[in-house]
Amino acid sequence: MLSTEENKTLTNVGAGTPAGEWLRRFWHPIAISDKWTGVKTHWNYESPITIDGEVGTVGSWADRLANFKGEPTPVKIMGEDLVLFRDGMGTPGLIGKFCPHRGASMEFGRIIENGIACCYHGWAFDVSGNCLEMPAEPEAKSFKDKVKHKAYPVEEMGGLLWTYMGPGDAPLLPRFDVFAREDGVRAVENFGLWPANYFQVCENTVDQAHTNILHGGTGGERSDIWGSELPQTKWELMEYGIKCTANRIAMNYNRATSYILPTMARLPQPWPGGKFKWPRISANWRTPVDDNHTLVLSVCFTPEVDGQLPELPEGMTFHVGDALLVHREQDYQAIVSQGSIFNRNIERLGTSDEGVILLRKTILDGIKAVQNGEDPLGVRRKGDPKEIIDLSKVAYDGLNEATV
Amino acid sequence: MLSTEENKTLTNVGAGTPAGEWLRRFWHPIAISDKWTGVKTHWNYESPITIDGEVGTVGSWADRLANFKGEPTPVKIMGEDLVLFRDGMGTPGLIGKFCPHRGASMEFGRIIENGIACCYHGWAFDVSGNCLEMPAEPEAKSFKDKVKHKAYPVEEMGGLLWTYMGPGDAPLLPRFDVFAREDGVRAVENFGLWPANYFQVCENTVDQAHTNILHGGTGGERSDIWGSELPQTKWELMEYGIKCTANRIAMNYNRATSYILPTMARLPQPWPGGKFKWPRISANWRTPVDDNHTLVLSVCFTPEVDGQLPELPEGMTFHVGDALLVHREQDYQAIVSQGSIFNRNIERLGTSDEGVILLRKTILDGIKAVQNGEDPLGVRRKGDPKEIIDLSKVAYDGLNEATV
Amino acid sequence: MLSTEENKTLTNVGAGTPAGEWLRRFWHPIAISDKWTGVKTHWNYESPITIDGEVGTVGSWADRLANFKGEPTPVKIMGEDLVLFRDGMGTPGLIGKFCPHRGASMEFGRIIENGIACCYHGWAFDVSGNCLEMPAEPEAKSFKDKVKHKAYPVEEMGGLLWTYMGPGDAPLLPRFDVFAREDGVRAVENFGLWPANYFQVCENTVDQAHTNILHGGTGGERSDIWGSELPQTKWELMEYGIKCTANRIAMNYNRATSYILPTMARLPQPWPGGKFKWPRISANWRTPVDDNHTLVLSVCFTPEVDGQLPELPEGMTFHVGDALLVHREQDYQAIVSQGSIFNRNIERLGTSDEGVILLRKTILDGIKAVQNGEDPLGVRRKGDPKEIIDLSKVAYDGLNEATV
Repeated sequence: MLSTEENKTLTNVGAGTPAGEWLRRFWHPIAISDKWTGVKTHWNYESPITIDGEVGTVGSWADRLANFKGEPTPVKIMGEDLVLFRDGMGTPGLIGKFCPHRGASMEFGRIIENGIACCYHGWAFDVSGNCLEMPAEPEAKSFKDKVKHKAYPVEEMGGLLWTYMGPGDAPLLPRFDVFAREDGVRAVENFGLWPANYFQVCENTVDQAHTNILHGGTGGERSDIWGSELPQTKWELMEYGIKCTANRIAMNYNRATSYILPTMARLPQPWPGGKFKWPRISANWRTPVDDNHTLVLSVCFTPEVDGQLPELPEGMTFHVGDALLVHREQDYQAIVSQGSIFNRNIERLGTSDEGVILLRKTILDGIKAVQNGEDPLGVRRKGDPKEIIDLSKVAYDGLNEATV
Repeated sequence: MLSTEENKTLTNVGAGTPAGEWLRRFWHPIAISDKWTGVKTHWNYESPITIDGEVGTVGSWADRLANFKGEPTPVKIMGEDLVLFRDGMGTPGLIGKFCPHRGASMEFGRIIENGIACCYHGWAFDVSGNCLEMPAEPEAKSFKDKVKHKAYPVEEMGGLLWTYMGPGDAPLLPRFDVFAREDGVRAVENFGLWPANYFQVCENTVDQAHTNILHGGTGGERSDIWGSELPQTKWELMEYGIKCTANRIAMNYNRATSYILPTMARLPQPWPGGKFKWPRISANWRTPVDDNHTLVLSVCFTPEVDGQLPELPEGMTFHVGDALLVHREQDYQAIVSQGSIFNRNIERLGTSDEGVILLRKTILDGIKAVQNGEDPLGVRRKGDPKEIIDLSKVAYDGLNEATV
Repeated sequence: MLSTEENKTLTNVGAGTPAGEWLRRFWHPIAISDKWTGVKTHWNYESPITIDGEVGTVGSWADRLANFKGEPTPVKIMGEDLVLFRDGMGTPGLIGKFCPHRGASMEFGRIIENGIACCYHGWAFDVSGNCLEMPAEPEAKSFKDKVKHKAYPVEEMGGLLWTYMGPGDAPLLPRFDVFAREDGVRAVENFGLWPANYFQVCENTVDQAHTNILHGGTGGERSDIWGSELPQTKWELMEYGIKCTANRIAMNYNRATSYILPTMARLPQPWPGGKFKWPRISANWRTPVDDNHTLVLSVCFTPEVDGQLPELPEGMTFHVGDALLVHREQDYQAIVSQGSIFNRNIERLGTSDEGVILLRKTILDGIKAVQNGEDPLGVRRKGDPKEIIDLSKVAYDGLNEATV
């Protein structure tokens, strides 16, 4: 049970809020890159949502960020209204939505060689927020230097565009295996805009009991196995987050997933039917849109084994989305139906929620670190920026691994 | 004219509010029972409404509660989010929407023999809110006894499911003639979710002048007669509410309706055209959904006369809904267009509003009784629970009665 | 940059607010008159808007006020809920929406010879708000005189219905040339309900730089010329508002538009392609609906020259709407995308915004005048009420004028 104040501390994502500032110490993916030419998909889920008066569905909102084409595209991240675009040289930019001159949205801006120009009076900015032009100002030369527009750096990795919205120098963009390995097939998926606070979605990852109950039984992939035996569970803090182990003793079936800070789930993924034997790893990232909405992006990577890609059985694809539709809809229902921000005043936690308790403590520790001017756990500044971070030791599935 | 404070006192329906606590001393119908096999219908009114972000119509919201099938069904009553269901043995239950474990909605729950299990981690509850199972908790045995979920009793009567959401022992569920008589044909109708506070709808019942003006003239059943002469009106407090008499002297036509506490109208109903002669009695109940929305349920009963049911003329049915469509739409417009909670600061009451004034006083007296720890007028605890309460003396129509 | 308080002062339109009281010293058009038999059109813009829970589009909301037929029609002006109608004798009336008896909306009222009667209990009012009937009140005779309903005067001019919602005697309804000249063809247009504060739309008129940038370039009428050279601009306060001059020196092309208080733009209008040579003058009026929505009405007048009307080239019409669709959509995007009330805390004004600064000062001076009990600039009380106010000296287009 959390007090109202503790719940706010963990769930509010705006600039200046405790969790908002903690989240801003990390890179977050915000869209599927227009340069990504590989497998991609998005979830056409028809559940209705309304955000800022705009009526849509979980799927329709995903369209925009699943099919970004480089044109100025409005996007809200952690409560901030922004516009994502690529300048005429192909550099991606993420700037404040409202032109600092008189507030017209940069989503109607015109792309120029090295930036974007506002539709209204032509004030132009580069991807760093520097003002390049003020065509109607006679004294533009000196005025321009006084105007700096909000701008966040954008990087590409694993078919996604990532941004860092925090202060100071950005930390390294961590090249987790799912995003960075090149020896296989990557599928990039947009799972839509969920009308729920990011933290609700995140708790689901350190909650091994739900795999048995919510996904157990008939209907979903591997559901029969997951539902057949309650696992022995363990949660351990590690360098990048929390390793969650669920071992089914009777079946001698060990499974581990990992929670990667700030909001990612690193999972071993079964294939449809659970029968096809080939490793498959995936990551789900939850990027807060505002306090009540979360963008869920997913990447799935199928590695080569002995230099070979698998020949997929009929009806299978490299992306997880279609295969695990039942599981995703189950998660969606369980998570979104708690209300857009679950009132944790009324919860009753048990021993199966120890992972949830550890996650909360970890985030609160991260918040404290930020408030003390330190980097929170999970932020990486040292080492080779190109190093690929192998997470296979903390996310594996005994049934998958046995096969190859 | 009411002050803002007085208006709030009468209109707010949440737990802990004055009228909310008063309303909670009575049973309220919340859905058409899935066991009801008789005549039923609902009003497919296409006027748009949005509640809790869910876009629908007056009619579409009625669908869910007109066609309850026993499956877990979300329902909001007096501002409380609840789920209505039938357990595996057929007992109806009404429990809190949010699982007391981690808040997933019980609307996605799985029906079990003697209760319902949450989709997320399987916590199971019986219809009394007792926790039956915690499948992922090793110490479930002792933990379970400490967890009690919100649950309200549900009874069946007259084709409707009724609940009592107040403290202590529930009073008797009053078996008014319309709901309880068996010597005739009962039609059960769902008149939709009206985007107006319950009290606005209720005032309409003790407002005999509107029958002449709003329903008078052409278009509705008996409109020509009702509109032809202003009646002499009288309002009298009685055991279960207010008897409202409207006598048209010139025509020697006496009519009485009664307001049954807390929110019911007991009416004599004309048949289409007013020509067909057979008694017909009905009840409209207004169940508050939240401060701004009211569920209107109606039951119409056509009794046998001398052991015989009428042979209906062509085009007539046993339900009121289709016949009085013009009247209902007129009432809807007059009531809903006042705003979802009418600002009674600006009203100017006349002598024709004496019934309204008496109703307000009666409810305020009821509120005071509750605040003093007493039962308000209309609550019944003594006597034979099976006794049918005959209201024909306080609700009759001279034109109907003359016929049989 | 404005402080939050200054921004509120200029943008809030409700009764009792500074700008709301200033606006209430002027007449405003609220609908296309049902008596108007000339050219009319409205903008079927499909951009979605929701106002008071009613979901619609910029165009659908325009329908109601573009096609007023004399029937009671709900309309919100400056935050006040009103009903526009014509009584049985043809006199237009604008009265409070909520009946002063028990609040039913007068939009469901019945038109009577000299007024309108509420649907609920028949209280009837004339266009001045006098109570004419209380059919259910025995003492109606004396009660009626105590009840006065909110009512505003309505006048017709130039195909529009105008109202004055201020205190005391209404000033003259200023007969500007566009609305009052009879020697030509008038087209009346409803440009829809814009989900933006009136002041944002108004600033666009004293912003000559945007003509070059937003409308310059390809796509809109005269865009190539407007975009080819930055004009020398000047803003001058005059009797009815602000004269805005934009002279393009290299082309020897002078253009002036004028801002007419409180919210009108008086423009010289190019013909499609800019090629056809004939004078054409227009007015856009922005009537505040509430703080966040503005009704944009437009009138375009094509005068006779030497007693002759032009023969229009193929594909041209007398209304501006269809011809300048590109410009209007550009304005809509630039204005509405600032947010429904632009947060002027973040703006950075330059020398090209001197007109905006002058407009703000002019309105603030008008607000001060009102607060001192004086008429603000632009209010006209003296002189011949029938005099047509010629604005051709303060609104002209060198390219148009050169031709005839």
